[in-house]
Amino acid sequence: MDKGLNNSRQDFPILNQQVNGEPLVYLDNAATTQKPLAVLNAIMDYYQHDNANVHRGVHTLAERATESYEASRDKVAEFINAPSRRSIIFTRSTTESLNWIAASFGNLVVSEGDEIVISELEHHSNIVPWQQVAQKQHATLKYIGLTADGELDIQSARELITDRTKIVAIAHASNVMGVVNPIKELAKLAHQHGAYIIADGAQAAPHMPIDVSDLDVDFYALSGHKMLAPTGIGVLYGKEALLNMMPPAQFGGEMIDFVHHQDASFKELPWKFEAGTPNISGAIALGRAIDYLNELGMDNVLAYEKDLVKYTLPRLLAIDGVRVYGPPDPDKHTGVLSFNVWGLHPHDLATGLDMEGIAVRAGHHCAQPLMEYLNVEATARASFYFYNTQQDADRFIHAITAVKEFFADGIS
Amino acid sequence: MDKGLNNSRQDFPILNQQVNGEPLVYLDNAATTQKPLAVLNAIMDYYQHDNANVHRGVHTLAERATESYEASRDKVAEFINAPSRRSIIFTRSTTESLNWIAASFGNLVVSEGDEIVISELEHHSNIVPWQQVAQKQHATLKYIGLTADGELDIQSARELITDRTKIVAIAHASNVMGVVNPIKELAKLAHQHGAYIIADGAQAAPHMPIDVSDLDVDFYALSGHKMLAPTGIGVLYGKEALLNMMPPAQFGGEMIDFVHHQDASFKELPWKFEAGTPNISGAIALGRAIDYLNELGMDNVLAYEKDLVKYTLPRLLAIDGVRVYGPPDPDKHTGVLSFNVWGLHPHDLATGLDMEGIAVRAGHHCAQPLMEYLNVEATARASFYFYNTQQDADRFIHAITAVKEFFADGIS
Repeated sequence: MDKGLNNSRQDFPILNQQVNGEPLVYLDNAATTQKPLAVLNAIMDYYQHDNANVHRGVHTLAERATESYEASRDKVAEFINAPSRRSIIFTRSTTESLNWIAASFGNLVVSEGDEIVISELEHHSNIVPWQQVAQKQHATLKYIGLTADGELDIQSARELITDRTKIVAIAHASNVMGVVNPIKELAKLAHQHGAYIIADGAQAAPHMPIDVSDLDVDFYALSGHKMLAPTGIGVLYGKEALLNMMPPAQFGGEMIDFVHHQDASFKELPWKFEAGTPNISGAIALGRAIDYLNELGMDNVLAYEKDLVKYTLPRLLAIDGVRVYGPPDPDKHTGVLSFNVWGLHPHDLATGLDMEGIAVRAGHHCAQPLMEYLNVEATARASFYFYNTQQDADRFIHAITAVKEFFADGIS
Repeated sequence: MDKGLNNSRQDFPILNQQVNGEPLVYLDNAATTQKPLAVLNAIMDYYQHDNANVHRGVHTLAERATESYEASRDKVAEFINAPSRRSIIFTRSTTESLNWIAASFGNLVVSEGDEIVISELEHHSNIVPWQQVAQKQHATLKYIGLTADGELDIQSARELITDRTKIVAIAHASNVMGVVNPIKELAKLAHQHGAYIIADGAQAAPHMPIDVSDLDVDFYALSGHKMLAPTGIGVLYGKEALLNMMPPAQFGGEMIDFVHHQDASFKELPWKFEAGTPNISGAIALGRAIDYLNELGMDNVLAYEKDLVKYTLPRLLAIDGVRVYGPPDPDKHTGVLSFNVWGLHPHDLATGLDMEGIAVRAGHHCAQPLMEYLNVEATARASFYFYNTQQDADRFIHAITAVKEFFADGIS
């Protein structure tokens, strides 16, 4: 485990630098991942050979650009086992995907008195859009609770998901608690009550095999930049029948069939949802990122990260004064490790770690209701990807101790 | 004029290729522009040294990424002479900017019986969002007509813009007719009647100096990819007081101040409108594109393109059977040349030109109401940028004649 999965570390030139005089250890992968040369080269290649606007052109470059852009859609569909390419919409990000589902589909199916069920561990992007729907439709927003270990409490889910529920929207994996939620079970539960299920896959799709058909989710959202692709490209998967019901979220070029002076008709799926020039190079680069992940194998990515967590989590828990959020059992824990060190503000901790070259995040992680639930203001968070190594973990563990000592000396 | 403005042609490696056995002449710049090495290197640099998520991190990479991202906002503000950085919102594209203005601001200020005034030469992205507002609010959508030369008819504007008008939304430059519209005059007219003015700057900002303060527009929209930057990044400029009134279009991370279980409060400008991870590398690359354009000088870009049009337009008009849309006077005509050749379908013409290595567009150019107004199904369109040369123009003119002859031979 000293060169990343499949020696992949060498593919990420950014990792080969010093920060504050120390070799960089990048453990902020839940915020965004680094990009392999293969993805960067795909961007350069596109702009040096094929760049043109898509769909509307008959010239050679426009045909090449369109072909590559649409080929990426096929790759995404295959990557998450979507039943068809028509169910794959390119968006800016998971946040945009969830906003479109809430604003367009949510407002369509939620009426006064209905209930929307989310959970205590959601990211703001899977909370605030539903607050908006609830306020607009005079519906009620309910939160599934967590177990003492920080896992989603399935008993609470069973109580909250009823025939009044119209929408169940849940993170597939938590960006704070390091847990994977039982989406398939929740989908079954939601469907039994005639509700729709939406999975926020931002923290899951980069780290494990995803099968939206097997999960039987109605919608699934993911972000390219959290899985090796550039910023500015995301995916909205939806069942075709539901996407067909759902009004477009934006209007303009590319998505129309015909525009008359007073009204317009819209294209069929998937283009109905892609108004204006899309992030063509972003989509193409996402396709190349998916190729890269497929070459590694998502089962291998999952297993490798699991091994890293098995190595790191007990060592982290063994540090005096450390509290880890989420399950202490590494088998139940993803590569997201949120923690606090007694007596240290997480921002001071993260700043101290940065002085050692170690990049972790500190804050509320866009999950303030969860912070409230956990009764903490903030946490530090280290998050792994397949290019991290056992040495990264060692440096991280060692540095926490060093920072603790530094602050203890400073205080005493 | 044989190496582009300031020898810039060498900065665009994509132009140095053969298409169908002929050196590429890229004349589809109104659809999207090519990217100089400086911009591509900025993307590579960012991903090889600084990539991290912005605003939320205390570690070194996150600080660097945030600094570069926010520096780009300053560059955009300066480029269009916006009174403050708070009035610059990063979006995906002009289309998204216009959609947000229509959906968030339009629906706020337009009520039953009000009127929205656009023009006959608008792009679908500045038509369909207003159709949606008009339908939702039971308002009326009116179209300013054109003069015989294809310019916006200011007399028609004076008749249509009245005290019933709430919104005037007009392209700063047309993507079909090659005209620049008198936005400053229209702004004055709109404001005299208590209406708001929105300018679609997609075809103007890349080609001329823009001063939103002098124009006194309430909102201005532009796309990065039409001005040397990558796809997936655009700008929404708005007067601060109006942006403050306007509800956010999307909700999630980055844009919130505090999220409680049942409601949330939002950040101040500009972040209130930037939900989720933005297109960080796209924004940074747009900043670099602006640096590049500033090095050329926008006055020089405008003058160079004007010279190219003065050279090309009379030669195009001199070809037997060619009809050019928009003013025949090169002084009134931008680098966008829409035309038809008698007896040739524009798609066949564009395909024929592609066989000669010349990339032009053919179709309705996302302006079907204009096609209806002009009583044509489609046009061919050649559009120049500062890296095009007089040789490009010669090859283009020569190839039209060749294609005409080819089809004439084929038919006879």
